[in-house]
Amino acid sequence: MGRPKDDARRHELLTACVRYAQERGLFGLTLRPLADEIGTSTRNLLHHFESREHLISEIVDEVLADQLETSRALLSRIQRQKTAATAPPRNVVADVIADGLELSWAHTTTPQGRIQMAMFFEIYAAAMRDNDLRKRFVDPVITEWVTPMAQALEQASVVNALSLAHRVLAVHRGLLLQATATGATPEIAAAHKDAIHCIRNEICTA
Amino acid sequence: MGRPKDDARRHELLTACVRYAQERGLFGLTLRPLADEIGTSTRNLLHHFESREHLISEIVDEVLADQLETSRALLSRIQRQKTAATAPPRNVVADVIADGLELSWAHTTTPQGRIQMAMFFEIYAAAMRDNDLRKRFVDPVITEWVTPMAQALEQASVVNALSLAHRVLAVHRGLLLQATATGATPEIAAAHKDAIHCIRNEICTA
Repeated sequence: MGRPKDDARRHELLTACVRYAQERGLFGLTLRPLADEIGTSTRNLLHHFESREHLISEIVDEVLADQLETSRALLSRIQRQKTAATAPPRNVVADVIADGLELSWAHTTTPQGRIQMAMFFEIYAAAMRDNDLRKRFVDPVITEWVTPMAQALEQASVVNALSLAHRVLAVHRGLLLQATATGATPEIAAAHKDAIHCIRNEICTA
Repeated sequence: MGRPKDDARRHELLTACVRYAQERGLFGLTLRPLADEIGTSTRNLLHHFESREHLISEIVDEVLADQLETSRALLSRIQRQKTAATAPPRNVVADVIADGLELSWAHTTTPQGRIQMAMFFEIYAAAMRDNDLRKRFVDPVITEWVTPMAQALEQASVVNALSLAHRVLAVHRGLLLQATATGATPEIAAAHKDAIHCIRNEICTA
């Protein structure tokens, strides 16, 4: 029997590993330089996380949890609309979606958000060659946004609700892809503002 | 002096390396399994490409050249419009952009296109932590699309031409990001069609 694992210490180590992977990349991670950098030993990392592969998997789960937390604000407001007695007016649905996109943009274009997004896109790209990772990571980060948006749009009788929900997520992620690589330049920030404006128009007139 | 390098053999090897990297991933590539798979030796790979780093760099250049070739069709048609004596009507600019997006979508959602795009996004994500790679890869794959689109839109007196060009590329790449990970499902293909329809509307009425 090994020594009992200290949950608080484990969580602290995992947080340091996530931060390290955000700075240096996740899939190229090796234990020795990681351990040196965060002031522990490979032996201790293996004690807490079993293997490099298992540690990477836990880091993916942390990134996923963080992503889903961001979309939850949007989700909960849309759920509240759905429990209202009457169908929500389109402009209310448009406001909720616009606020969600603005919140996500503000959160992901800070310096800290940018390094989080770099790892988000690193995992997303890796999942293109890994079915398990796709099911575990890509599917939820798509459906968590698309499903509630599509439902709310449909309830407000917007035509092509599912297609619109996919396009909303696509333009948002496409601009984030660029903002993460090149920085959220005024040009890209303006394009995101205009995208929200167009989405609002399409919801209110479709 | 080493033996003279055979350019045709070198090109053949590079093509095999690109194919291998598309299937297995680029930045995790190691020479021994690569050499075994493509039926050569690490010694021969090093003879032609000097080092693993240099080989990866040449693969990036191949992917970049392939990307720029795809956008060149769009570019050349837009250039032709610009040399016409009178400003092109908006519906002509809308047609050229719509055709370019359809061409790119058709090219990148085939099984072969999908593995090419997986490497495209792998390089894109890696460039978020590597300034040289960003300048060499991300900047051109953005500006090659955005600059000619923005110029053509401006020439046709579309307001917010630059913002629209960025949003066109963002929704296209955002849908490709999903199509590459999950396959170009009918849902995503429909969203891409609708995106083109909306872009055309915005160009003709903005």
